[in-house]
Amino acid sequence: MKVVKFGGSSLATGAQLEKVLEIVKSDPARKIIVVSAPGKRYAEDIKVTDLLIECAIKVLSGEDATKLVSLVVERYASIAHELDLPSEIIDEIRSHLVELLNSSQENRNQFIDAIKASGEDSHAKLVAQFFLNRGIEAQYINPKDAGLYVTNEAGHAQVLPESYEHLYSLRAKNGVLIFPGFFGYTKEGAIATFSRSGSDITGSILANGVKADLYENFTDVDAVYSVNPNIVENPNEISELTYREMRELSYAGFSVFHDEALIPAFRAGIPVHVKNTNNPSAPGTKIVHHREKSTGPVVGIASDKGFCSIYVSKYLMNREIGFGRRLLTILEEYEISYEHIPSGIDEVTIILRQDQLHPETEEDILERIKNELCADEVKIEHNLSLIMIVGEGMKQNVGITARAAQALASAGVNIEMINQGSSEVSLMFGVKEANEKKAVKAIYEEFFTPVLI
Amino acid sequence: MKVVKFGGSSLATGAQLEKVLEIVKSDPARKIIVVSAPGKRYAEDIKVTDLLIECAIKVLSGEDATKLVSLVVERYASIAHELDLPSEIIDEIRSHLVELLNSSQENRNQFIDAIKASGEDSHAKLVAQFFLNRGIEAQYINPKDAGLYVTNEAGHAQVLPESYEHLYSLRAKNGVLIFPGFFGYTKEGAIATFSRSGSDITGSILANGVKADLYENFTDVDAVYSVNPNIVENPNEISELTYREMRELSYAGFSVFHDEALIPAFRAGIPVHVKNTNNPSAPGTKIVHHREKSTGPVVGIASDKGFCSIYVSKYLMNREIGFGRRLLTILEEYEISYEHIPSGIDEVTIILRQDQLHPETEEDILERIKNELCADEVKIEHNLSLIMIVGEGMKQNVGITARAAQALASAGVNIEMINQGSSEVSLMFGVKEANEKKAVKAIYEEFFTPVLI
Repeated sequence: MKVVKFGGSSLATGAQLEKVLEIVKSDPARKIIVVSAPGKRYAEDIKVTDLLIECAIKVLSGEDATKLVSLVVERYASIAHELDLPSEIIDEIRSHLVELLNSSQENRNQFIDAIKASGEDSHAKLVAQFFLNRGIEAQYINPKDAGLYVTNEAGHAQVLPESYEHLYSLRAKNGVLIFPGFFGYTKEGAIATFSRSGSDITGSILANGVKADLYENFTDVDAVYSVNPNIVENPNEISELTYREMRELSYAGFSVFHDEALIPAFRAGIPVHVKNTNNPSAPGTKIVHHREKSTGPVVGIASDKGFCSIYVSKYLMNREIGFGRRLLTILEEYEISYEHIPSGIDEVTIILRQDQLHPETEEDILERIKNELCADEVKIEHNLSLIMIVGEGMKQNVGITARAAQALASAGVNIEMINQGSSEVSLMFGVKEANEKKAVKAIYEEFFTPVLI
Repeated sequence: MKVVKFGGSSLATGAQLEKVLEIVKSDPARKIIVVSAPGKRYAEDIKVTDLLIECAIKVLSGEDATKLVSLVVERYASIAHELDLPSEIIDEIRSHLVELLNSSQENRNQFIDAIKASGEDSHAKLVAQFFLNRGIEAQYINPKDAGLYVTNEAGHAQVLPESYEHLYSLRAKNGVLIFPGFFGYTKEGAIATFSRSGSDITGSILANGVKADLYENFTDVDAVYSVNPNIVENPNEISELTYREMRELSYAGFSVFHDEALIPAFRAGIPVHVKNTNNPSAPGTKIVHHREKSTGPVVGIASDKGFCSIYVSKYLMNREIGFGRRLLTILEEYEISYEHIPSGIDEVTIILRQDQLHPETEEDILERIKNELCADEVKIEHNLSLIMIVGEGMKQNVGITARAAQALASAGVNIEMINQGSSEVSLMFGVKEANEKKAVKAIYEEFFTPVLI
């Protein structure tokens, strides 16, 4: 049995839904289908989820949202029209949305979450109707009925462990099951969404719950690329990745697959197969426990900007038991999480995502570190990028660091930070944001450009 | 005015003391002389300090120490004989030592410290006598009379800030002042020693206190070498170093100069000049705030063994605010200080000196990290060496990391850890102990061997 998730662009038009139908029909093991809300049809288009968020905010601020409601319903109507579906399905989608918009606004975040989630929910109903119309035994499954319970954290809910047992009973149901992605229900019966792009998470939870043989994730690219195609033209496609490699790549800006989404599949040992709805015969990328194919020590290069570093120096800091702990306690009081803490002899640097720091808290934190820890010097540097080189074969391979550092040196990029020592599958460099693209290109060329003889 | 410190080998025989006399006489600015206890005369010889420690421990366990007392006194007697000094000085040294050995044993550590410190104290008296005999106006100065007060931490006392003011009045005294190194007095009047090789510290404190123009540190090498001569034959001599460079080098095994000893001189901005008693015309090594001479980005390479690493992994650790702080709190409860904490995405490694871990505490700590932090995996690796590449010019120099990593790769040495990002003057590699020498050699050759054209 396979759980198959389709992304927003795979479900944006009637023509796309025809492709989805063909994909599902072509393999009887594809039993559980997780759907996203309709995505973009063209580059300037607006995703249904974004329209819904705008809609919810307008209503909360007492403004008229009639036009936005029409825009949302119009998206479903155009798909239904393209596919010759009966108009009742659109009436149902419209009245359900209006009903939600008239519901209690007492808990603002809960209200927004319910509106947001309706994008997937309505589309799941439409897709089920479409499949039925084409003679496929299919039914819409409501996450509450299926027992998909989550924590009460609007916008970043976490699955409750008992859900997995409930979901197992989906195996017994007949026909193809159409399941809306992105949300679950709290024990109190409220809708709560996962973090953005959370349909990936729903698919992974379902795959774990029903003990699927495979979790297929259909999107709009042929494969996971070894580097961001916006930085390097026509990059290598990756045919196989381990979970660890994928987790490290998605940490630093690989958005193909949601990083949280890997965990349920990983825990159950279910392979994940990333494939292209628009080119289903392409081999795609498989994410597995152990990978057999090996083309080189490095499998991918990822990068992300928006980091900053706080540098702290103090004579004989190195001998002061508790210094690091007290430093981290200050950050914790501001609910700031850090990424790395490289240290010298009497110096330490904290690398963190800079969107966590507002100008006032920033000044506050620097002041407190200076005064409470009697630091000799405290300074902050903004706008750093982290570059991650990932591959299971790196630990055994003497010289990877040298090659990467040499590539950066040749490109004239100064290394602000290196982090190696903990992960066995990655090597991280910090560079100035302005150098990020140049750095990624240089490293890609070092590890991926075939040597001409 | 100069403060001049002589190490144990510079004061081990009468012939050596003749050299010391010549050095002091040759420059009238050399007013305050800090002396160590007599050191080794030949490779297999025993230092007086080591004899004294053995002596103290024997007495504490109720055994007869007569033979050891004779051995100690004999060392001074042979020097006195060589220099034709009156026998009264030896009688005084003997009776002082016997008196100390008969004093209260209530506080064991205080007892040991008093015996240990007598090595320097007796030698300062002998040297003063010798100078007088040769017609130099000289006097022995007792640290208590001079106001050198320290904390009550036997074996690793710290200077109390008020001492600096007291010591300033030494400027007003006539003639050459002979000051015993290694110890001070607590406010309660007990003797407390600095950590081993603490005469360097005494000299630095005195230089700060009297606002000397220069602190000269006479030892038995022509200069600070750019690498350990036991690893590389005939290494480069360093003519100028900054305080920061010296601090980083002495952290990782450069024993020429005690690392704590730099601080008082640094704080007062007093240059330190390392010179050779046996070859006083050699230029030596100057430690300064800013260095003018520059021969390359790297000034020295140091290494030290005896480290271990504790690796901790946990899924989504990266998002858990407070994880690092809780980890460090556990170590703090065992009074363990760590050196570095390189981290991956969901992984962190703690590098520490392994002599802090006994087998039982080790098991305990690993168990607690696993249980209290719900870690997925916790493991320890022993016998690592840290290699430090030091130089003020490194931060500006693109490509240093690449060159060092390439040198290691060519030598077949795997890099277990890299630490770069905090210190602006150093770059640290972790390797297995078995690879330490090979690694240091390879890096030295990369940065110091002149390129033949």
